[in-house]
Amino acid sequence: MEFPYGQDPGAPIRSGIPEHGRIPKYYAAKVDIAALLEELGEGEPLPTERELALRFEVSRETLRQALRELVLEGRLRRMGRGTVVAGPKMEQPLSLASYTEGVRRQGRTPGRHLVSLDRFPSPPALAHDLGLSAGDTVWHMERVLLADDERVGLESTYVAVSRVPDLAADFEPDSSFYGYLHERLGIGFGDADERLETVLATPREALLIGTPGALPMLLIHRLSRDTEGRPLERVRSLYRGDRFSFTTHLGGARDS
Amino acid sequence: MEFPYGQDPGAPIRSGIPEHGRIPKYYAAKVDIAALLEELGEGEPLPTERELALRFEVSRETLRQALRELVLEGRLRRMGRGTVVAGPKMEQPLSLASYTEGVRRQGRTPGRHLVSLDRFPSPPALAHDLGLSAGDTVWHMERVLLADDERVGLESTYVAVSRVPDLAADFEPDSSFYGYLHERLGIGFGDADERLETVLATPREALLIGTPGALPMLLIHRLSRDTEGRPLERVRSLYRGDRFSFTTHLGGARDS
Repeated sequence: MEFPYGQDPGAPIRSGIPEHGRIPKYYAAKVDIAALLEELGEGEPLPTERELALRFEVSRETLRQALRELVLEGRLRRMGRGTVVAGPKMEQPLSLASYTEGVRRQGRTPGRHLVSLDRFPSPPALAHDLGLSAGDTVWHMERVLLADDERVGLESTYVAVSRVPDLAADFEPDSSFYGYLHERLGIGFGDADERLETVLATPREALLIGTPGALPMLLIHRLSRDTEGRPLERVRSLYRGDRFSFTTHLGGARDS
Repeated sequence: MEFPYGQDPGAPIRSGIPEHGRIPKYYAAKVDIAALLEELGEGEPLPTERELALRFEVSRETLRQALRELVLEGRLRRMGRGTVVAGPKMEQPLSLASYTEGVRRQGRTPGRHLVSLDRFPSPPALAHDLGLSAGDTVWHMERVLLADDERVGLESTYVAVSRVPDLAADFEPDSSFYGYLHERLGIGFGDADERLETVLATPREALLIGTPGALPMLLIHRLSRDTEGRPLERVRSLYRGDRFSFTTHLGGARDS
């Protein structure tokens, strides 16, 4: 069957070939290595840089640029001193369900490590979002997100102390905050607004998640309300761009 | 009002300060420049590198690393030979509505430039997605997406020739494909599945969109169905990560 440019649809067509027809050397090497990764399969170690440079007839510097992009895109993973073929990105549903639930659905074990739990007087913008008065006390809980013991993200939750007074004493930070709200306080989630963008991790974030500094991340801003429509929490969730994708089903009626 | 670390919530808390307490120099400069951008306001020119390096007491190399990240994140924009303060990212709703509709809602003028329109025999995976037999002929239409005459993305649409036989003769490539399907062929969109991830632009994509090669992009894979539930099109939409964010409203019932 004939298919132009020997590429799968869904992949960038004629990817890497600018209209003027010259293919950057590092990109040609990247395409060659990507084909090799397909052959090798998930978890298999990559040959050494020396072997790859010889095989694809490129300089070590050109080779490294190709490898760097494949790492940033999550197709290769650094493991100790070696590099292995990465598995596909996780597919986390955009839904009211919690991180915990989304990760479990993919057959992985979710976890969280508490980084910090502080309380502070709410500045005006946050107070407005949460339906509070400026100066009202809010919690800030920061947790590293884990999947199968791998650090994959960082989550900051802001919630009024008046709504969750015993958070510090009561809540097990490795568990689901949504589960806690529901089971202990009878608070259910009604709806939420989310905004999703790509950002670069700050040095501190990169350190906490254990990624290289310039790794593109997916950042989700969430404002959620309870079943009575009252604002409940503001959340800033940062996910490794090389390990996560997000899925959504767009239903029948068009937005107005 | 006291607020820890002098930062807004929603911003990364203590951003850039790793636990060991040392702040990378380039990051400290980045924070200083970000504060300066707030003062200057959208569209204002940035002082020269020389002035900035003197003002923040960093080397030109350190300064450039800070500026590079601010450009990648869409807070600064290169304009000809200068650099200006960028406006906020566009907020495109994740919905069945078309790109055209989403951009208009934000008070901007949408546009599209045709890159290519080809027909080819469908490989098995695409045929499966579109409810065809392998080898059935499909269109591939590739268009650069514009907002106010600025190139902001690149869209590849795959659709069966049997469903849209006169596409090449009939369709004005600068208009909305969804509008065409609806008005000329009476085909309405019923629902769609989307998957969103961050990727690096290929050299060809970067050239077509006019971005630097390593700019993080937001990539949306869409499979949409008509109102009778029949698969209609597969779309690969690439958006500049420095210019776009995506919003969604998560409604009442939890996913099962």
